[in-house]
Amino acid sequence: MTPDALADFRALLGDTGVVTAPDVVAPYVVDHRQLIRGTTPAVLRPRSTEDVQAMVRLAGKLGYGLVPQGGNTSYVGGATPDESGRQLVVSLERMNRIRAVDPLGFTLSADAGVILADAQAAAEAAGLMLPLSLGSEGSCRLGGNVGTNAGGLSVLRYGMTRDLVLGLEAVLPDGSLLGDMRALRKNNVGYDLKQMFIGGEGTLGIVTGVVLKLCPEQVLTATAWLQLAKGAPLPQMLAEVRRETADLVSSFEFITANSVALVAALKPGEVNLTTGSGGAVLLEVSSSSRRVPLDEILMGTLEALMEKGWVEDALLAQSERQRADMWAVRETIPEGEKHAGGSVKHDISVPISALDAFLDQGGAAVAAYDPALVLSVYGHVGDGNIHYNIVVPQGEDRLAFTRKIEAGLAHDLYAIAAALGGSFSAEYGIGRLKRDLLERYGDPARIALMGRVKAAFDPAGLMNAGAMVDPKGAPPA
Amino acid sequence: MTPDALADFRALLGDTGVVTAPDVVAPYVVDHRQLIRGTTPAVLRPRSTEDVQAMVRLAGKLGYGLVPQGGNTSYVGGATPDESGRQLVVSLERMNRIRAVDPLGFTLSADAGVILADAQAAAEAAGLMLPLSLGSEGSCRLGGNVGTNAGGLSVLRYGMTRDLVLGLEAVLPDGSLLGDMRALRKNNVGYDLKQMFIGGEGTLGIVTGVVLKLCPEQVLTATAWLQLAKGAPLPQMLAEVRRETADLVSSFEFITANSVALVAALKPGEVNLTTGSGGAVLLEVSSSSRRVPLDEILMGTLEALMEKGWVEDALLAQSERQRADMWAVRETIPEGEKHAGGSVKHDISVPISALDAFLDQGGAAVAAYDPALVLSVYGHVGDGNIHYNIVVPQGEDRLAFTRKIEAGLAHDLYAIAAALGGSFSAEYGIGRLKRDLLERYGDPARIALMGRVKAAFDPAGLMNAGAMVDPKGAPPA
Repeated sequence: MTPDALADFRALLGDTGVVTAPDVVAPYVVDHRQLIRGTTPAVLRPRSTEDVQAMVRLAGKLGYGLVPQGGNTSYVGGATPDESGRQLVVSLERMNRIRAVDPLGFTLSADAGVILADAQAAAEAAGLMLPLSLGSEGSCRLGGNVGTNAGGLSVLRYGMTRDLVLGLEAVLPDGSLLGDMRALRKNNVGYDLKQMFIGGEGTLGIVTGVVLKLCPEQVLTATAWLQLAKGAPLPQMLAEVRRETADLVSSFEFITANSVALVAALKPGEVNLTTGSGGAVLLEVSSSSRRVPLDEILMGTLEALMEKGWVEDALLAQSERQRADMWAVRETIPEGEKHAGGSVKHDISVPISALDAFLDQGGAAVAAYDPALVLSVYGHVGDGNIHYNIVVPQGEDRLAFTRKIEAGLAHDLYAIAAALGGSFSAEYGIGRLKRDLLERYGDPARIALMGRVKAAFDPAGLMNAGAMVDPKGAPPA
Repeated sequence: MTPDALADFRALLGDTGVVTAPDVVAPYVVDHRQLIRGTTPAVLRPRSTEDVQAMVRLAGKLGYGLVPQGGNTSYVGGATPDESGRQLVVSLERMNRIRAVDPLGFTLSADAGVILADAQAAAEAAGLMLPLSLGSEGSCRLGGNVGTNAGGLSVLRYGMTRDLVLGLEAVLPDGSLLGDMRALRKNNVGYDLKQMFIGGEGTLGIVTGVVLKLCPEQVLTATAWLQLAKGAPLPQMLAEVRRETADLVSSFEFITANSVALVAALKPGEVNLTTGSGGAVLLEVSSSSRRVPLDEILMGTLEALMEKGWVEDALLAQSERQRADMWAVRETIPEGEKHAGGSVKHDISVPISALDAFLDQGGAAVAAYDPALVLSVYGHVGDGNIHYNIVVPQGEDRLAFTRKIEAGLAHDLYAIAAALGGSFSAEYGIGRLKRDLLERYGDPARIALMGRVKAAFDPAGLMNAGAMVDPKGAPPA
């Protein structure tokens, strides 16, 4: 970047708003899983929506591309610049203001750079709950949650990020502002353009603010660890749980014995929960009203499941401590996989009724490929989403093994999912790492239309080129 | 239309698929409220998605525009052709097949021409519930529900149509098919293009199929008619109800004394429900589980509201008959307005926390305009949506009065809503009748981008030109 260009950006954003020191820049140009590494002349750190507008105009004038970045926790390289040196990283980290919490309207309005956990805390302080919860909530930011249509632990009851967004503000590639920060449940006034930014992965503009739906604070919670019988049918179980709990179920997380073992290996002596012969389910129900006899409802539900022969045994959390222990197992699985040498992640979704079929056929495909492979299978079964991960075998190079699996076995799994009406990317998105999958499994008519939408929003290809659909971007490294 | 062109369409769709007899065509070219009347050379009635594809290609070749129509129940002339004689009406009425109901996956897949009530019945037959419920459900069709992002009576708990659509199939203006009929809760694979068709009012293509989320059947329901105290704060009441019922509240309908009086005038001697000095609320809670003590929860909630002084008296429905009587009052209001000579409808939404402010300021504006005007105010307060209707005074011509109000007082109301962060169209959409409002109250950056999206999908302006945003269409009559 020329000194003049740098000076122009500094004039707009201030000295601390333009970062070029290599050691400070370094973490911004590598993805969370360290699978790809790009380069950038500078990281831009705007403080306001107006900053973003001016910065976008200047970048366009100078011919630089922009890569919006929140907490940089993408699993698919969605916020990593390419190697051209012509893309500037835009970090929203200084735009971290909660704009308003409305306890009567049940809404929260915030800058896109607010860390998810901070938004959760702001809601909680007002006696409300932001029902978006992810493993990375301590570092991911709302703009990234919106850009990736984040899922997480509460989708079953509360939906994806898309279901929580009421209003949105985004700077378009020409620097103009699409301001739609209204806290309306209903607003049928033409194309709902904000939907394109939700899950748009920063390729259409830069999301600068968002209005999210909140819920009443849950004052009662009841949690159980279910040891499943062999062949316990997950879809039938879930349907029964939904009925019996009046949809007060907030989590239905399937966990296999292998995944628990990975956690136990990471934390020896600390895990005292075991799976049944069919795995385990972490089941949680919650209520905003003390008038609901939640424990009774959960107990009755468990009895119904046991009567059907689907559950061998169940442990009810008797204290917050026991509840935390149960969740710790679930939430430590990714770290357990890392500790074991890493894993190749497949973020698959299928129609809920096809879950068991996928697990059967997927298991057979893996065994046929290499019976020695260790699977770590777990996930948000309540929404048809299975994290179907293959542990990197001891002694294998993580990257090389990842590439090998992705070139071979992964396609068998994706083909099984596709044949069941499923998807190769349930919550991670496309980013730079799944572009080839999109082209392979995506419907050509849909991909062509995506290109036309991209061109309608971003004719010059300024925004996150190389991610998702943009044909103008450099190919993934 | 030339005999040759007609023969071409007949060859594609069969003789009964092309309607030209003026008396049969007549109901297709006038809107539900009989406010506008267009003309068409023929009504096309495809039987399949493939029919639609071939028909779209032929229409494009011959230079005819297409106006998709479901049950023709639009309140804003969204499915009425213009007067050019160059638009063919496409009725989806023969595409009325339920494709599948999946009781484990909680989904229903259907042709776009299925009548909403038939889809509800198909869900019910499988022990499930389709939680989309509108006054027009006996005649409106799913494609229209999708195209208008229909709201209705259950939005508070289950969301708008947008929140219920998992998959969608649409024929694009070039005849190609966007096939995305997957029953997936999670599928992050690029721009979620189906969102553009939801609320797209048929201007981007023709929706031919849809996959909808279902819920467990509600086996318990408890319903109450609340007489509100003067000044009872609706947002605070709703927040309390959400908390106390654990969000099992499914309806929170505000009804004013005037609206009840209109129903009583229509059905003398049949209405024995009265409002309190602050109006009434029809409150309903429901549960899919018999383990939930629903009556107790509702009673406790009502006691809490009375303790706060917000409710003067409350009547609990003791039988299905009493419940039906309560709902009959709510659902007969539109007919009551019609019986009184019609009404000028304002379909306003505001943030829930601004509801009382809107009612206060709106009432003052109406009184200032003409203290003799009679308001009929009611609606889905649970989602910030108020039907704020002005009864046509005796002796006034309905159309002339409508035009007078829409040219004057309506703008005062819309300005009040806008100042409170609200909208001039909560659920009705834009159609042909609210295009001027969109241009007046819409953000120019957003409208410009809507135009670019329209062009990306429908470069030739073939689809429902004249409705919503399309600048190529003829102006409303």
